[in-house]
Amino acid sequence: MNRYWSPVVHTLTPYVPGEQPKIANLIKLNTNEHPYGPSPKVIEALHASISDDLRLYPDPNGEPFRSIVAKYHGLSPDCVFVGNGSDEVLGHVFLGLLKHEAPLLMPDVTYSFYPVYCQLYGIEYRTVPLTAAMEIRSEDYRQHCGGIIFPNPNAPTGIGLPLAGVESLLQDHPDQVVVVDEAYVDFGGESAVPLIRKYPNLLVVHTLSKSRSLAGLRVGFALGNPALIEALNLVKNSFNSYPIDRLAIAGAAAAYEDEEYFQKTRLAVISNRETLADELRAMGFEVLPSLANFVFARHPYFDAAKLTEGLRNRAIIVRHFRLPRIEQFMRITVGTEAQCGALVEVLRELTTGHRP
Amino acid sequence: MNRYWSPVVHTLTPYVPGEQPKIANLIKLNTNEHPYGPSPKVIEALHASISDDLRLYPDPNGEPFRSIVAKYHGLSPDCVFVGNGSDEVLGHVFLGLLKHEAPLLMPDVTYSFYPVYCQLYGIEYRTVPLTAAMEIRSEDYRQHCGGIIFPNPNAPTGIGLPLAGVESLLQDHPDQVVVVDEAYVDFGGESAVPLIRKYPNLLVVHTLSKSRSLAGLRVGFALGNPALIEALNLVKNSFNSYPIDRLAIAGAAAAYEDEEYFQKTRLAVISNRETLADELRAMGFEVLPSLANFVFARHPYFDAAKLTEGLRNRAIIVRHFRLPRIEQFMRITVGTEAQCGALVEVLRELTTGHRP
Repeated sequence: MNRYWSPVVHTLTPYVPGEQPKIANLIKLNTNEHPYGPSPKVIEALHASISDDLRLYPDPNGEPFRSIVAKYHGLSPDCVFVGNGSDEVLGHVFLGLLKHEAPLLMPDVTYSFYPVYCQLYGIEYRTVPLTAAMEIRSEDYRQHCGGIIFPNPNAPTGIGLPLAGVESLLQDHPDQVVVVDEAYVDFGGESAVPLIRKYPNLLVVHTLSKSRSLAGLRVGFALGNPALIEALNLVKNSFNSYPIDRLAIAGAAAAYEDEEYFQKTRLAVISNRETLADELRAMGFEVLPSLANFVFARHPYFDAAKLTEGLRNRAIIVRHFRLPRIEQFMRITVGTEAQCGALVEVLRELTTGHRP
Repeated sequence: MNRYWSPVVHTLTPYVPGEQPKIANLIKLNTNEHPYGPSPKVIEALHASISDDLRLYPDPNGEPFRSIVAKYHGLSPDCVFVGNGSDEVLGHVFLGLLKHEAPLLMPDVTYSFYPVYCQLYGIEYRTVPLTAAMEIRSEDYRQHCGGIIFPNPNAPTGIGLPLAGVESLLQDHPDQVVVVDEAYVDFGGESAVPLIRKYPNLLVVHTLSKSRSLAGLRVGFALGNPALIEALNLVKNSFNSYPIDRLAIAGAAAAYEDEEYFQKTRLAVISNRETLADELRAMGFEVLPSLANFVFARHPYFDAAKLTEGLRNRAIIVRHFRLPRIEQFMRITVGTEAQCGALVEVLRELTTGHRP
């Protein structure tokens, strides 16, 4: 509390990102990063982009990355908005498209940054409970609202909403923006991008931090009809004209030009996930059916906070949320085969011979 | 205008950055970039930081850059807030520290992004006219307000306010934040950083886009007492947890570790500026006494818009603002000796034998 702060600051409870500890030989399965590095072509493009030109401002729209990603998704560049990670893109989306008189709808169990944006920008919101099976049910959103946002697959459950469910939301709310946050879609979800031509109220948000292995480069983007993108540009150009630096633009562009590496590495993660889920189930864990690069799991007898602590003592970190409905779950990022193996081994020790 | 937009979007008139045209052999003197490239040690550090670790999120506080810059300025790390260019830092400053019931004060001729932030965040502001000599006079700010912001040296005039003037503002307004935007301070201005220990209401904003030759890397920071920095962190962590990418952190850190290169290149710009100002004056231009890496000049007989167009036809671009009080000025970035020479030559042609 401080007399110099703007009044809104006193109301903020910021998002708490997963920690980035500096522990040697740490197995880091807490922030859903990709276990394999970025494409060698990204590495090459980054080296090639280091020059005296760093003295010059970058392209304010993230070109040529914007055009490359537009082409990749079969859209025109004015359907693409590039930002400094999908969190920044989401920030502009909340302020520019989701602040209306009627409340914004979101699932009760979802990405915990969403309510934080609402607080920052004074947006009223209402949560819609997931079903007992932790699924989004489109019919539950048939209520008066100013917009809808949800991740698909949802986080931290990993459960996907089939495209028919997304389409029913779009049809039920033709006058509201429906934001589908597809941060994890490449690990098995169904993308809503093909629906953009049909629905002017659809905005899809993607990130390069997960399936493209570039969390350290901070690039994300939104796809939607030009009128929605225009709102985001008006907000962005009232905040920071040049959000993406020259190296990030070059690296991001190269990531979308190496389809083979992308396919190989995303499929490897999917394969590791299925093995991990099977092994956890064999130990007695309930594992939600994940379409993401993490699994959300709970054990009928062992407390999630204690398991998380037990893993941490062995230099393995996973994410545990002290939140209603999910406090007995651990969210475990899918690592390499070796990392998953190490995790399973420690969990086996922690859950063997200690049954309460 | 669109039914999907949040109401605030309809009110926005965004900042228009200087253009980044793709013209061959262009002499680009329109966005105050540094004419010399970044330190060779920055280039080296950037190459060294490219690795598979790009799959991991960066440090959310921009460490180790934050600690390096703190030490450079003789402050502790909790006195430093790092952002994605000083424009992003300013955005958070406006929302977190300058939104009060009483109006914010700023000069009438100043960085044209300031009123744009006010519009975005619904901040009331009042402009305080510069003197006839285009100077900030501290006494003119002795009025009821919620905060004060100005660049020092001011932009686009280039004129500096001596430290005694800054201190008088701080003393006159002990209950308001005074933000000194020192984007151009390294080209001859007096920095207010040493006053931070004495004044809890002082916030100083710096950028690496000008004197550090890194506009393409997008790094800026604010310096102030920990309570002010805390407000910025609360806002930032409600918007984007990881604003600075891994490469930008590494490059920025290296820039502050090569003091020799910094001194050499900033002095070269100062020397070029003085030569350029002398040559412009010899041609009849009035040149304001600049302490920045640009000069603000007008000719008694030749129209600034026409001169700007004439330069552009010869592939030299400078900045011209169609704004009250300054529409007869051109803002010319100080280039290399060769670039300044080419500019002077064309201006000589445009102002010779054409006297109206």
